[in-house]
Order: sequence, then structure tokens, then C-alpha cells
Amino acid sequence: MLKNKLTELLKIEFPIIQAPMAGGITTSRLVAEVANAGGLGMIGAGYMTPSQIRDQIREIKRLTSNPFGINLFIPNKFTCSEKEVKSAAALLQPIREQLNLPPDDGVDIPTSNHLFETFTEQIKVIIEEKVPVCSFTFGVPSLELINELKHHTILLIGTATTVKEAIEIEKLGMDMVVVQGSEAGGHRGNFSSNNQESLIGLMSLIPQVADHVSIPVIAAGGIMDGRGIMASLCLGAKGVQMGTAFLTCIESGAPNIHKDAILQSHEDQIVLTRSFSGKEARGIKNKFISEMQKHEESLPDFPVQNSLTQHIRKASVSQNNPDYMSLWSGQSPRLARNLTVEAFMKSVIAEAKEIGKF
Amino acid sequence: MLKNKLTELLKIEFPIIQAPMAGGITTSRLVAEVANAGGLGMIGAGYMTPSQIRDQIREIKRLTSNPFGINLFIPNKFTCSEKEVKSAAALLQPIREQLNLPPDDGVDIPTSNHLFETFTEQIKVIIEEKVPVCSFTFGVPSLELINELKHHTILLIGTATTVKEAIEIEKLGMDMVVVQGSEAGGHRGNFSSNNQESLIGLMSLIPQVADHVSIPVIAAGGIMDGRGIMASLCLGAKGVQMGTAFLTCIESGAPNIHKDAILQSHEDQIVLTRSFSGKEARGIKNKFISEMQKHEESLPDFPVQNSLTQHIRKASVSQNNPDYMSLWSGQSPRLARNLTVEAFMKSVIAEAKEIGKF
Repeated sequence: MLKNKLTELLKIEFPIIQAPMAGGITTSRLVAEVANAGGLGMIGAGYMTPSQIRDQIREIKRLTSNPFGINLFIPNKFTCSEKEVKSAAALLQPIREQLNLPPDDGVDIPTSNHLFETFTEQIKVIIEEKVPVCSFTFGVPSLELINELKHHTILLIGTATTVKEAIEIEKLGMDMVVVQGSEAGGHRGNFSSNNQESLIGLMSLIPQVADHVSIPVIAAGGIMDGRGIMASLCLGAKGVQMGTAFLTCIESGAPNIHKDAILQSHEDQIVLTRSFSGKEARGIKNKFISEMQKHEESLPDFPVQNSLTQHIRKASVSQNNPDYMSLWSGQSPRLARNLTVEAFMKSVIAEAKEIGKF
Repeated sequence: MLKNKLTELLKIEFPIIQAPMAGGITTSRLVAEVANAGGLGMIGAGYMTPSQIRDQIREIKRLTSNPFGINLFIPNKFTCSEKEVKSAAALLQPIREQLNLPPDDGVDIPTSNHLFETFTEQIKVIIEEKVPVCSFTFGVPSLELINELKHHTILLIGTATTVKEAIEIEKLGMDMVVVQGSEAGGHRGNFSSNNQESLIGLMSLIPQVADHVSIPVIAAGGIMDGRGIMASLCLGAKGVQMGTAFLTCIESGAPNIHKDAILQSHEDQIVLTRSFSGKEARGIKNKFISEMQKHEESLPDFPVQNSLTQHIRKASVSQNNPDYMSLWSGQSPRLARNLTVEAFMKSVIAEAKEIGKF
């Protein structure tokens, strides 16, 4: 069995982390099954209320006695005028009609202040419930917050897309760093580098980061099987974080229509888009992305656009229509499998062991 | 020593191929030294005349008795009106002034016919000189040409950026396929997939291609050391093709100003641009790329734009000014080394052996 600084810090058997995908994918069963199989399950809590977070943490504790983790979004400062909101909403109107949604169903546009307040409450619950591991995306916590969380012996994981971001994470005193390659599905985690600069493939990103930080590096993006795990370790990572691979597992809360779309996709159908949320994210190209493509540049920033498309995405799911939902996926959909977490973990561990020491 | 289908086919000791970088980088010494060190050296002959090709092949044969290879560009059909050429030339005028170049120095814009004729002549030389290995970029040769080259027992390597392209290459009867990840420096080799679709990181691309073809897969893009080599093998490749890593070697013909720029760059300074040639290519962001950025979409296709910028790039090199030359680089510049080929090959082989069976 492979023992390294990462498995020792996290107190897990295998250096396999289930990515904290937000939006209902990381059910308690998914997180607990990963933990029970020797990996680190993680709650994608970015969009969850503090009380939802508390409930889920307690539910997972009933399903496993192994450690698990949680991920929060660092709130971003943003401004968006009423005029911008109106014109962005107008662009969505033809799609609302397609889905038989009323012209205006009163979406609440969050404010920066509101995001910061929610974040503070989320953190409070995590401390109270003593979640052993907390990771962050879209930025880094303040030094003050890092010290508070460390005082409560919570292990901290940052998300970086460049060497510069990884160095910043280590300097702040965080314990580990997820390096998100350009292959990764869902939202880009860049926070101090711009979108184009930060689209770096893992073959390049892992060794360059590993040479510049001493905290354990966790590779994320396009890793789906034992081959990807062993390649990441060769490149200098101490473990991997897998998203799409767990999204298509039986226990994941992703709608079946999303799982099926991934299972039937090819790598050249996966694109980057700002259209769903206002932040660049990778997913399967569908009608929504195609129709919004010409407006990409002018859409309001995250999370404003995310709020504006919320009812569209929900209606698309409930109508079993893949055209208007966000079908997040990394660049390896051909490698996706629809297994239970237990069977999936056994497979990838066996595959890794066949290649080398794991 | 690692023996596999690739090393056996190519009759080389180590599954390390020096990428056939065009434009004077692959000097005879570079190619021969790679061959002498047990890898496959390759001439980047895309821009070379038939007689230059013949001379270099003969020179390399005097420097090594080991096999080596050559790469040609598949000519593309293109049209470009006089008006388009004039307006593209006008965009370059301020830069010509910066470099003290005359307003119009009579660049010959090639025609499609001319490209096809040159290609036919290049092929003739390769057959006559019995070059053992020939690879192609920007497309695939006709079935007729493939059969002719195979009749002369020349091993054929195609370049693919997606699974679909790799399958096409295998179906045509070529012997091996280079899979070019999004990390790769220089020109993108996509030919049946569009630019965005074909930007796939090696972590995703290698295993998906390896699952769909039975010819040996050669990984290319961001691979700079033993870590990248071993990771590629874990993912299902039988060997690697390294470009930037050989470009900064002592024997490479790249201008020192280009080598120095790579040796001092970071991964987040490497961007994609059409501005130098009309075809997407990856290199270090400099003044030329920044100034042309707003015109990216309207520039004429390869090779028209390439001809238009030719004197600018040359003047920039001869004036030792990195602002207006194409500083091609993959996404791993922090891993670049300035060694002799012999020392470089010894290092990467030792690094690979330290990680696993190589």
C-alpha cells in the first residue's frame, strides 16, 4: 500500500479524493461510500445553506466513521447594475419560452455582502461540526480565517491553476494544494491568473508546481482510472482528485440525463463556457452553450449569471431535456463508467497496482 | 531497457523522439546527436526546399549511422484575395516601421498549387534518400501516397489531436500516431477537428486514444523530463515526442534569444495565437502577439499570414529583439534546460529509470 505525506495527513488508505462537485451531486451516500472505500469523500457545499450543510455533515457521520471533507467557494466581490441584469435576462427570454417558463419568475440576484455573510455562517457550521478537511475554490481564505480553522485542527486544501497560485496557497499556511489542469470539468478555479493563462494541462502543471511547493500536490482534471492516478504520481503529485469519474457513479446525485450525456460523449465535444454562471466552466456542448456563444463576453459575472439561469437549468433537468442544463464534464468522457463507488474504487486501485507501486 | 512495439519498429534504444520543429531549429547536429544517444532525431522540413532537404539528409548520414526521421506539412487548400492580403499587410505596417523595414519588401504569397508541387518534390527526395521514418502534420497524406511510401519501407507517423483524428490515421494504414496534447508548443496539428475541440490535455488524450487504436501512440506536449516520459507510458503511450525540451539544447538551431526566453518563462506566459502564421500555435506572449490580438479573427489563413510576417520575424531575430519573433514554447518552460543533447538524454533516461521500469 502506498503511504505518503498526503495519505498520512488525511488519514486515508488511498490517495484518491472525490472532487467536491457543487449542485447536489455529492450526496451523503456518495461521500460516505468513498470514505468507506478508503478514499476521501467531499461535500460540494458552495451553493448550500448553513443548515443544509449541518444536516448533510450529520448524515454522513451516520454512514461512515472515516474522515471526509467539504468545499466552499471563496466569495467574490462583484457589481452588476440593474440595467446589466435586465439585458442579460432578456437574452435568456427565448430559452425561457422554449421551456414554458414565465417571463419573470423573480430570481433573487445575490449581493456581495450576502455572499460574505453566508460564507461566514458556512465556516461556523464546519467548525462546530468538526469536519476534518476543508477545501476552497475561487480564491484563498484570509490569513485570519486560515489561522482560526487551523486552531480547530481542520486540514486546509487550496485550489490552484498555476505555479503562482500554488505558491500563494503554501505561503498562507494551507496544508495541501489541488492543482486543477485544463482538462478539468466544471468551474475553473483560477483566482490570480486570467482565464487563458490558467488553462494548463496536467502534464505541464503537476511537475512545475511540485518543483515549487513543499506541501502535497493533488492532481485534478481528466483523471478517470488507474492510468491517470499512476501518471499523476509519476509527475510529482501525492494523490488525485477525481470529479467526472465519481459523477457518473451510481451514488452520485447528478441527474441520470447528465450521467448518460457524459457516458455517450467524446472528448472533442467538451468545451469551456461562461454562459451558465458567468464564470468559465467545462462541460458538454449543448444547445444552451451554442445559442449563448455570441453573448459570452457580455454576460454578467458569477454569481449573477448563475442566478439568472437557475430556473432554466432546473426546468431543463425536470423536463428531462439535456439542451439547457449544465452538463459539466472533464475532457475524458470516453473513460467514464457507471459503477457503484465500491466497484469503481476497487477497479481503479487494481488498475493502478497493475502499473506500479500503489 | 524498455522494449516495446515503438522502439522495435523504429529500431531505437529509447522511446524518445525529438520533435521535428520547423524553421531551422533541427540542425543536423541536433538530429544526429539525438540518434547517437539512442532516440529518434527528426528534421522539421515543413518550410524547407527539396534541395535543402537533400543536403541535410546527407549531412546527417555523415554524422550518425542510426535511423532518423523527417516531418512534412500536408499542404492545405486556401484562397486569399489581393484585398485581404493588402489589409493584413497594412496591419503589420506599424511593426515594420518599428523594425526599420521598408513598407513593402515584395513578399511572395504562395499559392495552393505551389504548395502541392513543393510537397511532391519533398516526398521524392525522401524516397530517393531512403529516410527511414516520415511524419506528417496538418493533415494526412492520400492513400496513394501512403502506399507508395510504404512500398519504399518508410515508416509513417501521423499527428492527431483527438481520438477521431487518431482513428483516421490508423485506418489509412500509417504505422504510428503522435497525439499532440493542448500543452504542446508551436503549431496545433488538428486537421479534422476545430481549434477549440482539439485542445485536449495529455492526461485525457493519451488514454482515450490508446483505447481506440492499436498502432503505437507517441505522446507530445509539455513533456520535458523523466517524470513526463513515465507518466506518458502509464497513460498508455509507447513513447514520447519532445519539442521545447530539445529546442533549448546546445545543438538546436533556435536563436539564443529564443532559448533564453523559454529558460526565463513561466507556464502562465504561454498563449495560443494565430498572429504569426494564420494557424493557431503556442508560444511565449510578446509584444507582437499583444498588438495583433484584436485582429486575430480577421487574419488570413496559413500560410498567407506566415509569409506576410516572415521578414518581421527575421528582422526581430537579427536585431536580437524578442518582441516580434515567434517564441514557440510548450506549457512547461520552467522545466527547460540548456544542456548538450548527450547530457540531456542521459539525464531524462536516468530520471525515468528512477521512477520505474524504463
